[in-house]
Amino acid sequence: MSARADVVVTGTEVLTGRVADRNGPWVAEALRRAGVDVGRVVVVGDRTEDLASAVRYLAQDADLVITTGGLGPTADDLTAEVVAGVQGRAASVDDALEARIAAVVARLGARRGWHADPVATAAGTRKQALVPRGAEVLEPVGTAPGLVVPVAPGRTGPPVLVLPGPPSELQGMWPAAMASPLVRAALTGAATLHQETVRLWGVPESELAATLRGLDGSAAADLEVTTCLAGGELEVVTRFAPAQRAAYDALVAAVRAAHPVFSDGPRVDELLAGALDARGWSIATAESCTAGLLVARLTEPAGSSVRVLGGIASYANAVKTAALGVPAELIDTLGAVSAEVAVAMASGVRERLGADVGVGITGIAGPGGGSAGKPVGTVHVCVQSPQRSVSRELHVPGDRAGVRERTVRIVLQLLLELVEA
Amino acid sequence: MSARADVVVTGTEVLTGRVADRNGPWVAEALRRAGVDVGRVVVVGDRTEDLASAVRYLAQDADLVITTGGLGPTADDLTAEVVAGVQGRAASVDDALEARIAAVVARLGARRGWHADPVATAAGTRKQALVPRGAEVLEPVGTAPGLVVPVAPGRTGPPVLVLPGPPSELQGMWPAAMASPLVRAALTGAATLHQETVRLWGVPESELAATLRGLDGSAAADLEVTTCLAGGELEVVTRFAPAQRAAYDALVAAVRAAHPVFSDGPRVDELLAGALDARGWSIATAESCTAGLLVARLTEPAGSSVRVLGGIASYANAVKTAALGVPAELIDTLGAVSAEVAVAMASGVRERLGADVGVGITGIAGPGGGSAGKPVGTVHVCVQSPQRSVSRELHVPGDRAGVRERTVRIVLQLLLELVEA
Repeated sequence: MSARADVVVTGTEVLTGRVADRNGPWVAEALRRAGVDVGRVVVVGDRTEDLASAVRYLAQDADLVITTGGLGPTADDLTAEVVAGVQGRAASVDDALEARIAAVVARLGARRGWHADPVATAAGTRKQALVPRGAEVLEPVGTAPGLVVPVAPGRTGPPVLVLPGPPSELQGMWPAAMASPLVRAALTGAATLHQETVRLWGVPESELAATLRGLDGSAAADLEVTTCLAGGELEVVTRFAPAQRAAYDALVAAVRAAHPVFSDGPRVDELLAGALDARGWSIATAESCTAGLLVARLTEPAGSSVRVLGGIASYANAVKTAALGVPAELIDTLGAVSAEVAVAMASGVRERLGADVGVGITGIAGPGGGSAGKPVGTVHVCVQSPQRSVSRELHVPGDRAGVRERTVRIVLQLLLELVEA
Repeated sequence: MSARADVVVTGTEVLTGRVADRNGPWVAEALRRAGVDVGRVVVVGDRTEDLASAVRYLAQDADLVITTGGLGPTADDLTAEVVAGVQGRAASVDDALEARIAAVVARLGARRGWHADPVATAAGTRKQALVPRGAEVLEPVGTAPGLVVPVAPGRTGPPVLVLPGPPSELQGMWPAAMASPLVRAALTGAATLHQETVRLWGVPESELAATLRGLDGSAAADLEVTTCLAGGELEVVTRFAPAQRAAYDALVAAVRAAHPVFSDGPRVDELLAGALDARGWSIATAESCTAGLLVARLTEPAGSSVRVLGGIASYANAVKTAALGVPAELIDTLGAVSAEVAVAMASGVRERLGADVGVGITGIAGPGGGSAGKPVGTVHVCVQSPQRSVSRELHVPGDRAGVRERTVRIVLQLLLELVEA
């Protein structure tokens, strides 16, 4: 069995969804790469009792408990004190650490042009320098130090690794945390655990389930397989120990024999970028209902300027005509949401931006704007290469945000098929 | 004290971050509106033991435990069985429910043009119709029914409300869940709990902490205040019982006296939309490093076509020139990332798209492309109205995604100030 670490994410702002948790998933992935199993992430608000109870709960069967957040200068940041209490250790201010934090705060304040009240700043700094006795201090990346807090002598339980909440600080501190002697000792059981993914397009989950049931009785049936359907893509993730490699290969062979596997790992974004680069093709987008979501996604990876020229979000019909050259009479007679307008948008943006591949997207994301003939979720898309033009009429389920997101996902698949054809 | 409900989110795909959890925050917010307190969200993978342990943990002090996900047709969907086990109840297939699910599956398959294997489909349907004895069934919105599972006779503990994972199904089932007699009985203690927010711009957290410490000794010091700093905006959220209204008013008065409060609730997006509409102004964007993120955000709300004309993502320099009219010699002499190019992009998009308000954004999101004079994070922005043009040179911290997101956040604030001026 591999070592196990579980995670507590603190912060009422995360609990209530005002801020999306980026730390739980990042920590889970970083641990998996290090061969450590993560089974649970507990999100708690800024309340002493809930935080303490969550740490105690996970400590029952984890080899390491990791907390993120709650290390800031304000009164609702109480992780260091609470963890000290759970581990049975008193906490006191580390004077040298306090001085180092004060220096960072002064530097940051100067750079941002903040005129902070020195008394307020000093109180916050002093709070951030509170260290449970016997804990290892991880040097701050921002202003908050990390901590590795072992359980008090004479008691049993895993150490608690206390990390700051801002993702850049947590990630910056991660190598030092993994190098900590206490953390290394806790995770000695860590074994290599592989995680591999295949991606299918247009396959219902129940079909895949039948394929997997066909493996019952073989070693492949013991694998931990997770499936996830999102926007037409069925993602199949399997975690396995090195000794299970042959079983995994058998599983993938069975899935490939029964279904259209379009990827043995990389996301559609990466495949599309690779396919465009292999052809030396550039791309430009014309988006109405998705209004920039596709071009924003195409430019997520570093270096995307080698293939992405840009995009035109033609939300108003006048912009479709002026910026993309869509004939006004086409819009007047067939409506802005029509196959013909999608084609004119794709060819217009190809021509005007001088791109090899063009995309046109026009649809009704809702909640208003639908009609009996063109209900909400009706989206016309067109993708064009120097060789082909492919049009589709989509009927995309979901609310406004869902229609926009799913449309982008479907168009990425259409683009991949177009460029690979 | 108000009633308390805690949430278990299931799914390895959520635990590992491949899918962002939309249910935990949504449920927390819906419960808060109903006067129910939510203190914890536990995310577990698709493992029987972890799911069972999470439900038992939350049942210790919650009045209602809610699970989301794990109700699909595949073998990794095991919530109904696990909850039955925890609550001490046997489960069996509900034949009438099975028939209703089969009808939905057939209809969905036909609409999507899937040719599903009937045996596989029937097995999945049968699995989804598994109901713990004594449980209340909530009619499926998609294919999965919800459940309210009371604890077995002779044992004590809260009921478990079992909801499907797809957000649209969960949200569609919510009213029926809240109307369930078992759920209503569990939440009888629900009291109205207010949550109010003020938003500050450009204030360090430690300054706000000092202001809050100034209230020590007054009733305002007992309020549950959470602060969250994101992209320059400091959000201050307070939860309080109706009897604490005067204390809350005192707190807000103290914060307003000390700091620039720009909103007493609405997000900057809403304030900007309202300000534009009050002036009757339209808006268009020219984005380079943010490449569509801003226009995508401006078009998130329904009905945004009244004010958003569109945007041009001018990722390539040739597009800045061809689509926005930025003089090529300006780019050649000063570089694409310069104050002058940002101004030319803003005025170019205003003119070409015929908008009242124009935005130009050009910067270096990284990780490559930086230099000593223009390091990664250097972003020039310009916002223009019929009356004014405001330019800023930003130095935005963070990785590529962070620079892009924070730039959008800062530009929204600049736009709000421009339009309100």
